[in-house]
Order: sequence, then C-alpha cells, then structure tokens
Amino acid sequence: MINAVGRDIPEEILKQTGKEVFQGNHYRDGYVYKKDGPYTKCVINNSGSKLVDSIHDVLVKCGIKDGMTLGFHHHFREGDYIVNMVMEEVHRMGIKDITICASSLGKAHDPIVPYIEDGTITNIQSSGVRGKIGEAISAGKLKGLAIMRSHGGRVRAIESGETRVDIAFIGTPTADDYGNCRGIGGKSDCGVLSYAMVDGDYADKVVAITDCLVPFPNFPAHISMTKVDYVVVVDAIGDPKKIATGAAKPTTDMRKLMMADYCTQFVVNTPYFKDGFSYQTGVGGASIASTISLAKIMKERNIRMRFGVGGLTKPMCDLLINGQADCLLDTQDFDLAAVESVKNLKHFRISAGEYADPFNKGAVVNKLDFVILAALEVDVNFNCNVVVGSDGVITGAQGGHPDTAAGAKCTIVIAPLLQGRIPAICSEVTTVTTPGESIDVVITDYGIAINPKRQDLIEAMKDVDLPFKTIEELRDIAYSIVGEPEKVQFGDRVVGIIEARDGTIMDVVRQVKKFEFAE
Amino acid sequence: MINAVGRDIPEEILKQTGKEVFQGNHYRDGYVYKKDGPYTKCVINNSGSKLVDSIHDVLVKCGIKDGMTLGFHHHFREGDYIVNMVMEEVHRMGIKDITICASSLGKAHDPIVPYIEDGTITNIQSSGVRGKIGEAISAGKLKGLAIMRSHGGRVRAIESGETRVDIAFIGTPTADDYGNCRGIGGKSDCGVLSYAMVDGDYADKVVAITDCLVPFPNFPAHISMTKVDYVVVVDAIGDPKKIATGAAKPTTDMRKLMMADYCTQFVVNTPYFKDGFSYQTGVGGASIASTISLAKIMKERNIRMRFGVGGLTKPMCDLLINGQADCLLDTQDFDLAAVESVKNLKHFRISAGEYADPFNKGAVVNKLDFVILAALEVDVNFNCNVVVGSDGVITGAQGGHPDTAAGAKCTIVIAPLLQGRIPAICSEVTTVTTPGESIDVVITDYGIAINPKRQDLIEAMKDVDLPFKTIEELRDIAYSIVGEPEKVQFGDRVVGIIEARDGTIMDVVRQVKKFEFAE
Repeated sequence: MINAVGRDIPEEILKQTGKEVFQGNHYRDGYVYKKDGPYTKCVINNSGSKLVDSIHDVLVKCGIKDGMTLGFHHHFREGDYIVNMVMEEVHRMGIKDITICASSLGKAHDPIVPYIEDGTITNIQSSGVRGKIGEAISAGKLKGLAIMRSHGGRVRAIESGETRVDIAFIGTPTADDYGNCRGIGGKSDCGVLSYAMVDGDYADKVVAITDCLVPFPNFPAHISMTKVDYVVVVDAIGDPKKIATGAAKPTTDMRKLMMADYCTQFVVNTPYFKDGFSYQTGVGGASIASTISLAKIMKERNIRMRFGVGGLTKPMCDLLINGQADCLLDTQDFDLAAVESVKNLKHFRISAGEYADPFNKGAVVNKLDFVILAALEVDVNFNCNVVVGSDGVITGAQGGHPDTAAGAKCTIVIAPLLQGRIPAICSEVTTVTTPGESIDVVITDYGIAINPKRQDLIEAMKDVDLPFKTIEELRDIAYSIVGEPEKVQFGDRVVGIIEARDGTIMDVVRQVKKFEFAE
Repeated sequence: MINAVGRDIPEEILKQTGKEVFQGNHYRDGYVYKKDGPYTKCVINNSGSKLVDSIHDVLVKCGIKDGMTLGFHHHFREGDYIVNMVMEEVHRMGIKDITICASSLGKAHDPIVPYIEDGTITNIQSSGVRGKIGEAISAGKLKGLAIMRSHGGRVRAIESGETRVDIAFIGTPTADDYGNCRGIGGKSDCGVLSYAMVDGDYADKVVAITDCLVPFPNFPAHISMTKVDYVVVVDAIGDPKKIATGAAKPTTDMRKLMMADYCTQFVVNTPYFKDGFSYQTGVGGASIASTISLAKIMKERNIRMRFGVGGLTKPMCDLLINGQADCLLDTQDFDLAAVESVKNLKHFRISAGEYADPFNKGAVVNKLDFVILAALEVDVNFNCNVVVGSDGVITGAQGGHPDTAAGAKCTIVIAPLLQGRIPAICSEVTTVTTPGESIDVVITDYGIAINPKRQDLIEAMKDVDLPFKTIEELRDIAYSIVGEPEKVQFGDRVVGIIEARDGTIMDVVRQVKKFEFAE
C-alpha cells in the first residue's frame, strides 16, 4: 500500500506488524488510547535489599527467558559497556530469541553481532544502528525485523504497549542501594538519563547498573527507586573518554561556514526570530557554527532565546552562561561542557517523552520555533533520509530528527550538496525517514530551497539576499556535477522498517545485494 | 469476617467493595499487579492552545457526566478554593452521582455538604474529612460509601486501577500555557504538589487551575505538560493566609514538653540513633518539641541526620539550615518556613507515591528509622485511631500515619493519656485506622509502653530511666481517673470504610445514632 510519502509498504509487512502506513504528520493528532502499565512487584517491607551481586544473578532474579525484550539506553554512546555486558551473559546462559529495544545502538556494540548471527538476538528496535550491527541487519542476518524509531517514537511504542519491555537495564553514573539513579557523579558521568526514563516507567523489571554506589537517598533521582527492582554494582559501566566525545571544535571548513552563515541569515529574517524564541540544533559542524554566529546577532539586536533544546553542546550551553538564553532543556549531553552545564540551575533535564513523544498531551518539540538538522539525503519532495547510507546499508539513526522536524515552526536542514561523489539532493531518497511535510528549508553550499508549501517563508525572504533556488534546481546542479547516481540495488527481503513517530510505517529497508551492472 | 486486628467486616461490605479483610502489614509484600494507565488524548500539533476560559467550559471539554470520579489535592489545606469552585459548577450543570477522590478534605469544603445531600456527590474517597463533611457522612447523608485511605493508599488505589479518576483538577501556584505546573511562586504558594502527582499520572483528563500564568517553560515542572490537557486561569485558587497555617509555635504546655522529653530520651537510647539516621515527625506540639530537643542532643553527640521526611515544619527545616541533616524529603509544607525552605537545594520534593505507596518497588517510608506520630486513641493491642472522634463522628484523616508507622523501624505514638474526659489509651479503639503491629512505642504523660513484640526495644531500654509501663497499666490509670467510657452507639448502616494501605479493609465506620441510656 502506498503511503503519504509515496512509498509502497508491502502488504505482508503490514500484516506481520499490524501497522498502518504513514498517513501524514497529524493523522493521529487527537487520537485517544489507553497507556500501558508495567507488571510491578510490590515492596512492602523495610528489611529487604535490592543489591544483587552480578549480572548473571540479576538475570536469574528477573526470570530471563527466551523471547524476552530487553531495554537499554545510549547515554554512554560510544563508551557504553552495558549492552555488551548484559548480552554476553544472556548468551552464556543460552537464552535465545531476544528483542533488544534500545534508544540507540552504535559501534560500541559491534561485539553483539555474533549473538545476532546465532539467534540469541532476533529482533532489534532502535533509533538506529551504526557499525557492524547495521551491516549485519542489512546483510539479512537478523532473523526478525529491525524497527527504527525516533526518540519520541520509542516512548510512544513503549507507553502504548506496542513494545513491552520485560527487563530494562539502566546504566547509571550513580545509584543508591534502593535504586535511585542519577545521570551525574561517579566515573561515567553522562549528565542525564532522559532516554531511560520511559524504561523506568514501563518495564516490568528494572535493573540499575552502576559503578558508583552512593548513600541513600541519591536525590533528586532522575529515575526513582519506586521503579527499580534491583541494583548491580560493576567495575565499569562505560569508558568515560568515549561518553562525552569531547568539546565540539568550531569548524574551519569554508563550505560549512558558508552554510552556517546562510542558515543564520535565514533564521534572523523569519518572523520567528524575536525575543523569546526557541531553538534546537544538532552536533554537525555547520549547525554548531550557525549557533555561534546566531549568538552574535542575538547580542547585536538584543534578542534573547527563551529556551534551547536538545542533545546539547558547548555553543548552546554558552548561550545560557552568557545570559543569552533563559534556560536549556536537555535530553542528551554530547560534550563535557554540556555535562558540566547541566549542574546549572537553569539547565533542565527532560525525559525523552517530554522532549519528543507524539503520544502524550504535548511535547517540547511542539513548542520549538527553529530546529537545525542534517541529512544524508533530501529529495525533491523534501523527504529526508538519515538512516540508510548511499550503499543501502543501515548506518545512521533517526534520533530526534522526525520529532523536532514535525514540531518546529521552522525546520531547516543543512546538507552539503555533494558528499564526495554522492548528491545529497536527489530525485528520490533511498529511504524516507522524515517526511517532506516536516521540512521547511534546505540549505546547501550551492543554494537554499524553501518548501513551496511554506509560502509565508518564501514571502518573508523575498528581499533577503540569499541564493534561493528551487529544490529541483539544487538537484539538477548536483546531478550536473556528479551525474545521477545509479539506484542502490536491494534484494526482496525486508530487513527493517522505518517507523514514523506515530507508529505507522514510513518506509522499509531491504536486504542489500551485490551491485549488478546492467548488461 | 474477622480481620487481623479483630474487626468484624460485614460480608455485604466485602461483597459490595470486592475487597478482602486486612491480613497484616506484609500480606501483599511481593504481590505482582499490572499498573493502570490513563486514556490519553495525543497532542501532535504545534498550533493548539490548552487555555480554557472557565471552569464551566473545561468541564464541557472534559465531557463531564453523571457518575464520574473527580480528583483533587489538599496542598492548600484550609485555604483551598478549588474543590468548592469546581463542585459549584458541577452542581449548577445538574450533574449527579459524582465520586470525589481527594487526597484530603477539610473544613474549607463545608460548602459542598449541600451537594452531598442532593446527590450531586454520592461517593467520597479521601485521607479523611473534617468539619461538616465528616458530620454529614457520619449522619448517613452520603448515598454511597466514604473510603478513608492513607496517602500511600490513595496512590495505590489509583495506580492499581481500583479508582479511575476521570478528571483531575490540580490547583497550582504557577502554570504555563502548556500545563507545566509548579508548587511555588504566584499568590498561593504551597511549596509542593506531591499529592497531585498521581492524578497527573493516571487521570484521563487533567486540568491545571492557576491564578498565576507564567511564560513557557515553567520548569522544573512538578507536574509535566505531557500529562495536562487544559489550563484554566482563575482569580484565586486559595487563601494564602490559610495555606501555610503559620510558623509552628513551640509549645509551652508542660504536659507536652514532658512527653517530648520522654520521646527524645527514648529515641536517643535506641540502636537506630546513630550517624546517618532518618526521621519523620508530625505537626503536634509534642512532636515539634521533641524535634527541637533531639536537635540539641544531635549537636552534643555530633550525630547527623541523613534525611528528614514529611509534611514539614520549621524545626525540621532548621535541621537542614543548621547543617544537622543532609537533606529533607518533602510531601507537604505545613508552615511558611517550610515553603521557604523548599527552595534549598537539599530540600527535595517527593511525590506521595515515592513517599508512602505500598504498591511500588519501595517507598521512602521503608527507609525510615523513626517516625513520631499522634493518635486520638490507642488500645491495649496498640491499634490506633486517627479518624473517628470519641463521639463516633468522622473528624480526622489517616494521612501518612499507617504508611510511616508500617515502614519505620521505630514508630512512636505520643498521646496525652487523657484528652479532656476521654482516655486516649483504652481497651478497644472506636475504629482501627493503623494496626497495632505497626506501633512500637506509646508515650503518654503518665508513662511509656513498648509493644511486647519489640523485645529488642524493651531490652535496649532496660537501664534507661524512663517511666515504662505496660499498655494495660496505662489504660488502667486512665480508667481509674475518668472511668471506662461508655461505647459510642452506632446504627447498623455502614457509612464508610477504613482502608488499609494495601487496599484491604481495616475497619468500617457506621452511622452515628443518638445516645440511648440503658434502662
């Protein structure tokens, strides 16, 4: 069945998943559903202990068995030890057919690929995957389907009961013996536990894993003892060097600086750029550079930001420190400056649900004026792809891309027109991950295209000296330089689905096959 | 059927409520149940508004109808305007058969008695009732049953789905236009919104009512926008003068000071009085005095409190200010000093669930060393009554009494032996509200009785110079002075039940009848 972004979703996938095809961003606005709830084991005594000696013992206590779904978060990013640690023990115990429901998976988790190959892990739900897990999925090694979800979409899936997490493993920089978890302190400081909060709320069994046990009460708790069954103390939950990937270095790439400048000029010429505006940006070099140049104009014009949102980096935190933003709303800390800043009283932690969930009564993304995003590919319908590489292999993550793009009043995608020999602006993206209706502006180093549905923005820019072009013109320039690339050749088997934030199907990902030249 | 505290619970009440009789504090320890979830209407747009002009309009938007359950909190205590404001409009609209599920009701709510009499309100669930509502229930004017629950018990009832709150009305000192609620700021500062948090989590419709609208985002939110459907701005949500009942005045009553001294001496001679102990006390004169005298000994012996809990008053907050306590965990602010103190970084807000709920994975009460409580009556089995007056009329509230008493390692009840002509220590309490198994020590002005099941405490006190007596001796002294009082005479009709914290039935309350002298 053809969905609202023109993708043909196979009937057998709809049947297998029980899902509908994507029908537009607002299809489920106003939808009423009953939230799920976890099976909870009451603790009505003052004598028990939640401390358990080992991952093995806690798996036994949680009743680990074939077919279970295990929850993980990715706040330790490339420094995460938790997923491998738990899955190694699950594998050792001979458990099969596990579904991993992670907020994201990365190269740190390459070691679990053998567990995919031997059937220990048969399903993966994640914002995305990088490294060898992506290759394994794209090669058809996962028995079940990979489901790629946005950060808000994961919360939706869990709280609607579509995904039931049997056991959540929450790596936490500090915990007390009763399970109060905090994202700060200890050896593996990650600042926040935003993505794990929904696991705390909805998983039947919740295990806190820490390498820094602190006295009760570890307050204010980011995840409460009232939701935690067991606490396991291990030697190390992560590699601190790889958790915060280091201070973001301002880019010196002239192409990125130019795009950043275009972006800033665009932003300040919209009607949304006024005192009290709100803003989110990613961690790409151009995004960061545009935040820095925006800060200068804010200062010149005496315009304050009401709140900044996101996965945060130093330039955003500087806005708070310099008094140019009233507060920050934080779901993830990408560098040490952000981890440090979260101690600021106006740097607020928010859960992934508060941030981006489409199935609550209103998330922060709905209140965004601007979001600055990146993309691997954008097509002439403004559809974006942030998950599947130009070789057809899964190599990225939805993250908050579809959530913020849908919510913000002005969604800007920055992409260099050419990534090596690959055009970023094309006739049709390999895989649709964020629908074109969410994207208002595409900024490239060869020009800027405004989505024709935003006539208001086109009107606002009519006297602005920026290199505006149509999206088709941008594509044509790209194709004129590198040619129109051959389409990636996929096999028939669907190995993954790209889930829209509301749980409908945006696109499917098929098994890659060796490229065959036409005769 | 006779329950674990010897009360005969009528079969028809068990049948009508579907409940079991109380079977001891730990009957449901380890019990597994599925948490309920609210029916949630998704907000997936960035253009809507949650602001609604009036209580009338918001009732219409929420689909108010006969038979619904409405949730309220009592953080404004005797200054609350919310219950009356909402019920007046419900009454005006001709709605019938409403269940009020409030965290507590007091004299401020006397104006809703006519709505009980005319069938607008037919069921009441509350920690307790005071004033004319209590009289009306005891006089049989409520068509259905009044259910008296502890603070923890209310959370349990709602999260287990036993009580489904259709619409929760959350009076909030500040809110933004998207529903982020905070217990501080504005004209009606109450410090915390602890009791309302469960309503936010589980009510199908959640209405924030404020008299101080602030800019988005009103963070850190005590109740999140993600749970709030509508925001109504009214002229006043409460009478600030009656919200915080004023600074607690140290008592000068010699009898209370003597009991406070006994209490302190008892506490410091238990093995739990050591560095890092935890402590909760109520707002009675003797309790407050004992906190003050305990602080002196803590200073002398260089013993620090790890955490203090509770409904808080100035003497507890002083411990934090003076560096004698590491932190405070706060569910309610009884005076202005507490409202002010909650701005302290180590004065943490907790939800009623975190505080006292028996149906989560471990509440704060389980971690208490000491709790100092009061009681209207204590019987020779150490059962307490804190709800029903000596005239048989409902006039008090369970509050956190059963929760903290069950959780704390050392539960002390302070009660003057005689309250006027009424003995506080008696053969059998009028109504059992906290079971004797939870009570370790009873301190009166005529002596101290240790529960015989606590041989460890009896042993610890063997060389301590305090006037120890058996509980029977205390009763006998009381009876020798004022005589054994005639039992209250009740009618047959059960007008209310005293629910144990785990949802079983502790006792029933019957309609009062005019006292008839024996011929």
